[in-house]
Amino acid sequence: MRKAGIVGAAGFTGAELMRLLQAHPDFELHAVTSDALAGTPVASVNPTFAGSGGLCFSAHDDARLFECDAVFLAVPHTVALDFAPRLLAHAVSVFDLSADYRLRDPDAYEKWYGKRHTSPELLVSAAFGLPELFPDGLLDAHRRCAQGEAVLVACAGCYPTASTLAAFPALQAGIVRPPVIIDAISGVTGAGKTANERTHFCFANESLEAYNIGKHRHTPEIEQILGLPGQVAFTPHLAPLNRGLLATVYLPLAHDAASLGGIEGIGQLYQDFYEGSPFVEVLGQGVLPKTASVAGSNRVHIGLALQEPANMLVAVSAIDNLCKGASGQAVQCANIVFGLAEDRGLAALACYV
Amino acid sequence: MRKAGIVGAAGFTGAELMRLLQAHPDFELHAVTSDALAGTPVASVNPTFAGSGGLCFSAHDDARLFECDAVFLAVPHTVALDFAPRLLAHAVSVFDLSADYRLRDPDAYEKWYGKRHTSPELLVSAAFGLPELFPDGLLDAHRRCAQGEAVLVACAGCYPTASTLAAFPALQAGIVRPPVIIDAISGVTGAGKTANERTHFCFANESLEAYNIGKHRHTPEIEQILGLPGQVAFTPHLAPLNRGLLATVYLPLAHDAASLGGIEGIGQLYQDFYEGSPFVEVLGQGVLPKTASVAGSNRVHIGLALQEPANMLVAVSAIDNLCKGASGQAVQCANIVFGLAEDRGLAALACYV
Amino acid sequence: MRKAGIVGAAGFTGAELMRLLQAHPDFELHAVTSDALAGTPVASVNPTFAGSGGLCFSAHDDARLFECDAVFLAVPHTVALDFAPRLLAHAVSVFDLSADYRLRDPDAYEKWYGKRHTSPELLVSAAFGLPELFPDGLLDAHRRCAQGEAVLVACAGCYPTASTLAAFPALQAGIVRPPVIIDAISGVTGAGKTANERTHFCFANESLEAYNIGKHRHTPEIEQILGLPGQVAFTPHLAPLNRGLLATVYLPLAHDAASLGGIEGIGQLYQDFYEGSPFVEVLGQGVLPKTASVAGSNRVHIGLALQEPANMLVAVSAIDNLCKGASGQAVQCANIVFGLAEDRGLAALACYV
Amino acid sequence: MRKAGIVGAAGFTGAELMRLLQAHPDFELHAVTSDALAGTPVASVNPTFAGSGGLCFSAHDDARLFECDAVFLAVPHTVALDFAPRLLAHAVSVFDLSADYRLRDPDAYEKWYGKRHTSPELLVSAAFGLPELFPDGLLDAHRRCAQGEAVLVACAGCYPTASTLAAFPALQAGIVRPPVIIDAISGVTGAGKTANERTHFCFANESLEAYNIGKHRHTPEIEQILGLPGQVAFTPHLAPLNRGLLATVYLPLAHDAASLGGIEGIGQLYQDFYEGSPFVEVLGQGVLPKTASVAGSNRVHIGLALQEPANMLVAVSAIDNLCKGASGQAVQCANIVFGLAEDRGLAALACYV
Repeated sequence: MRKAGIVGAAGFTGAELMRLLQAHPDFELHAVTSDALAGTPVASVNPTFAGSGGLCFSAHDDARLFECDAVFLAVPHTVALDFAPRLLAHAVSVFDLSADYRLRDPDAYEKWYGKRHTSPELLVSAAFGLPELFPDGLLDAHRRCAQGEAVLVACAGCYPTASTLAAFPALQAGIVRPPVIIDAISGVTGAGKTANERTHFCFANESLEAYNIGKHRHTPEIEQILGLPGQVAFTPHLAPLNRGLLATVYLPLAHDAASLGGIEGIGQLYQDFYEGSPFVEVLGQGVLPKTASVAGSNRVHIGLALQEPANMLVAVSAIDNLCKGASGQAVQCANIVFGLAEDRGLAALACYV
Repeated sequence: MRKAGIVGAAGFTGAELMRLLQAHPDFELHAVTSDALAGTPVASVNPTFAGSGGLCFSAHDDARLFECDAVFLAVPHTVALDFAPRLLAHAVSVFDLSADYRLRDPDAYEKWYGKRHTSPELLVSAAFGLPELFPDGLLDAHRRCAQGEAVLVACAGCYPTASTLAAFPALQAGIVRPPVIIDAISGVTGAGKTANERTHFCFANESLEAYNIGKHRHTPEIEQILGLPGQVAFTPHLAPLNRGLLATVYLPLAHDAASLGGIEGIGQLYQDFYEGSPFVEVLGQGVLPKTASVAGSNRVHIGLALQEPANMLVAVSAIDNLCKGASGQAVQCANIVFGLAEDRGLAALACYV
Repeated sequence: MRKAGIVGAAGFTGAELMRLLQAHPDFELHAVTSDALAGTPVASVNPTFAGSGGLCFSAHDDARLFECDAVFLAVPHTVALDFAPRLLAHAVSVFDLSADYRLRDPDAYEKWYGKRHTSPELLVSAAFGLPELFPDGLLDAHRRCAQGEAVLVACAGCYPTASTLAAFPALQAGIVRPPVIIDAISGVTGAGKTANERTHFCFANESLEAYNIGKHRHTPEIEQILGLPGQVAFTPHLAPLNRGLLATVYLPLAHDAASLGGIEGIGQLYQDFYEGSPFVEVLGQGVLPKTASVAGSNRVHIGLALQEPANMLVAVSAIDNLCKGASGQAVQCANIVFGLAEDRGLAALACYV
Repeated sequence: MRKAGIVGAAGFTGAELMRLLQAHPDFELHAVTSDALAGTPVASVNPTFAGSGGLCFSAHDDARLFECDAVFLAVPHTVALDFAPRLLAHAVSVFDLSADYRLRDPDAYEKWYGKRHTSPELLVSAAFGLPELFPDGLLDAHRRCAQGEAVLVACAGCYPTASTLAAFPALQAGIVRPPVIIDAISGVTGAGKTANERTHFCFANESLEAYNIGKHRHTPEIEQILGLPGQVAFTPHLAPLNRGLLATVYLPLAHDAASLGGIEGIGQLYQDFYEGSPFVEVLGQGVLPKTASVAGSNRVHIGLALQEPANMLVAVSAIDNLCKGASGQAVQCANIVFGLAEDRGLAALACYV
């Protein structure tokens, strides 16, 4: 059993990490921190843990974090900057769910997150945590880890995960003429645990809205992953559900769809790309994904369709924003880094209803 | 008091027409038909009418329809073909909420709706029921009606209403370089009253999905309204709420945004366009619409934003799909045709929560 | 047009009062106050008012309140104590939606609300605002108002309204053997606009819970209305919807149900009791109410059933907690006090869906 | 690995059984039947299974059912009568999720389910599947099973499970004076997969209702479990969520609460009763359960409160109606019958949000 720590365990992604790791056969929860709730039994805050033992939140400076094999940082951006270097210095591998180590360019970080990056050297060495698209960095981290080195993984964000998994195979195949348009819808867990007018039940319920058009912080991350600087128009929306993120990606085709084998040919391209990925399922022709089919799981469903007269490929992906979009993906990365099966502890299916 | 009839009063748009017309100061419900429920008190099916008098559904062949000043057809497509010519022949003005008289081209109708149009001559004379964009046809219908002629109004569909109100001012101003992408999300009332797996609570709840990509029947209607044949990529989505339709329209700009006065200049263009429209509100800069703010009302909220590097205008509109997207719009059209104030009986605001 | 003021207009019941009064043919909004939002346009906070003129929130000490004919207090308990005496002293009639003047006994007020009552003399003269059960006090207030006297109406709470309308006819008829059990479920608007973990979408959504068992502040109010001190067991629940309150009231019968004419006889008793009430509808035999059928309206639906072996009458009532349970009822009381038709401005029906 | 079959695998409880059993370390799915979908890949109907292998539905007469160690009957009542005797005759143990073998009295079965029972002898030998209250019957079934005998377990219904787990400890301790009142609320999965007006999203959403008062078929089952014939008043309600069942049980106390040690004493009584149950958690004093805290899990949370003046204990329990209320409980029973740990394959916690 490897010792796992969670910094920021009281938030939504922290709680999801607790759920996944307490059931993981190869990790045990060693320290779960929350400054606001230090000393409080987890079960008294998070009743899903009622009767599951006496786990308590500890303070962020809990020295047991340094005893861990892996620490997961489920903290707001800029906070991870305080933890990652210190943990690495104590030989603890770090899986950062915040945005702090995602952007390779420290200037881009400063522009979008409003703070000068304090450990830019780690931006170079960090592996990017999106295993289906960047396996090499994670496998390299695994090799380094196996040799006793502590590694840092910058796990991809929720919108970037869903969007780029939908767009990447077509882009890599060179069949797309940018710019690409990404229209995505998230459930309210994506807005975090902070109670405000935006997350109030009565305002989120029975409503739909777009937000942060042209200025969402996931835009540069998506552009970096896809290698399309300034070529991505990304619009996030909020809808009244807890978990689920649907990304509808419009990919103008560089050639006539027929010359690409039509939707069958493009579907085969996606099937081939995700061959061997335990979590990504390219749905059959004419089938579009529903977020409910992956909620609570680490799975990704992708459906494809053509907008014929406009000669566009529309790739739609569905994920659970808290699981594959955050905590599940972090565990998936940890599995890879520690040499476990990629889906270890992550095989649960969604509920049908 | 003008006599109003509703054919198909048991469905969602029929019930919404009943709600609006029973409270309308200038119309009275004279006949409300439902073949399946003929003879049944409305209140026993629709308990919002409990205690509101003894209104009963009658059969579709109820002769009282021919005594009406206005009949609203809240029927599935192809069914309106049976009613409109007969009602007009009896000097009854017809407000058709179905798709049967929307497309000017009878071949397009046959292609998309699978039936040869049986009264193509009415496609020429019908006024298109989207008052903010096509006031002239409705004013002409008003003049003809005032002279004793029965008129036919083909009311616009829900997705076309929201989408084209968001796109039209920019297109008319010549600042857009097509194609345009329309990404829209509807509540489940848009799927109609038929109970099936799609509309089952447990499948629609806590889920998001896209559907009918590249083949939704509202596509040709949107293209006709915008004058952009083959230049519209339209993707509808379903989200777990009852009422509400949000359209996010991507309009690539023909010129640099700055040369158009930036978002302020474009906002002013929209403000000017909708000056005098009692129902359309162009929100202030930086404000995006929420469907809850218009639910239960006939209002339209439009917000504007720029996707800067991609040089796109994103226009987002929110409507209540059953009200402004269907029944409210039909009543609005009837108000115009009968020379009443456009917002007569339609002034109610949405609930804040 | 009578001038109306709202103190606490930014909350849920305040917003509902604004919605109702801006559409009321006999009232105009003269001052709407919110200390936190003084000077802010209503539309910038509450977008349902976008385009509805330049109404702004003013501070609680806005002197225009004293120019009003009626001021509605949509404030937390204990705050109304500050406003009611001063407004009355300025000859302004007051409709208090808070709990401050509901309990006749100042000691009970102190026990349940934790503050010594500062105007106990008004507890004697205040009319109780539940017109269907206490018409006499309101008619007396009308007479006093017609003679130029400012009056105070203590409007009933949401749970008491639904519960006692369901229980009262049977109790008054002497067919019940107390204690009575009231099991009620409310939508989340009942928890107010304050954003906290309880009202966070992700915690309220997809969950059910009971709360405040045996200690909810509406208990003494229900007992007072029903004249059953210590004989009411009241359990409120929270369910994931915005508006709606369902009260299921268990009334042990003093005699065999058959001797009371069975469910038909009891149903007739209820029908007779509510004869003439424009808002209360006793549903037909075997029909139980749904909150959706009254949401957004001032209506009350009551259904009746027997639990045969246990010889209990179960009376179920459905209301909209913000409308009939708060703001609509206050307007109904104002209508009566000012000699208007009881349903003036309140006739709108719920949406079918 | 034991071979498991599911009859009626396309319904909600069938799908939940598939979810649980495909992840169960000691069972493998050998045959999953659905007459309507025979020959169809599971994944094409239930997309949570996309990419999970080629499992197909077979017809109800699939002979592979007779090769199973355990067959779970997830069929409507009266249908299980056709399957149980035949499977037992083939030495297959049967876990019946329907109501067909729950009532000991065949006359009661006929009265409530409208059909003469065709295998009343099995009513005597069937173990009742509610392990926390009736462990002996299941342990006896385990012994018989271990000796090669096929056994029948009649799994308890959803409302009876939640209600009786809340009521039983107090009743067994003799501190209750019947009748007891059970007021319960279920999510819409409890209404099953059939699409009708009741389960239509737009009718179930944003509404609350009571139904089947005094005539719900779970009433005699609850009375049988509690040993209180004619002493239970049970009212089920429907609320807009997928999974979750909350039962609020009113238990009039036979003695003064203080003489019972107050809520602490009664809480201890419940704690002692459920000592050793892996799934039941009696929450701390003042804590009431939320269904979300157990959704997707087999857990039961129980909270206790007093209604002091009325001298009633209120016991509130929360379960997932599809899991502990149906499929999870059936697997729990199978674990016991086959000598596995009671929580084998059932240890997953609910999601926090």
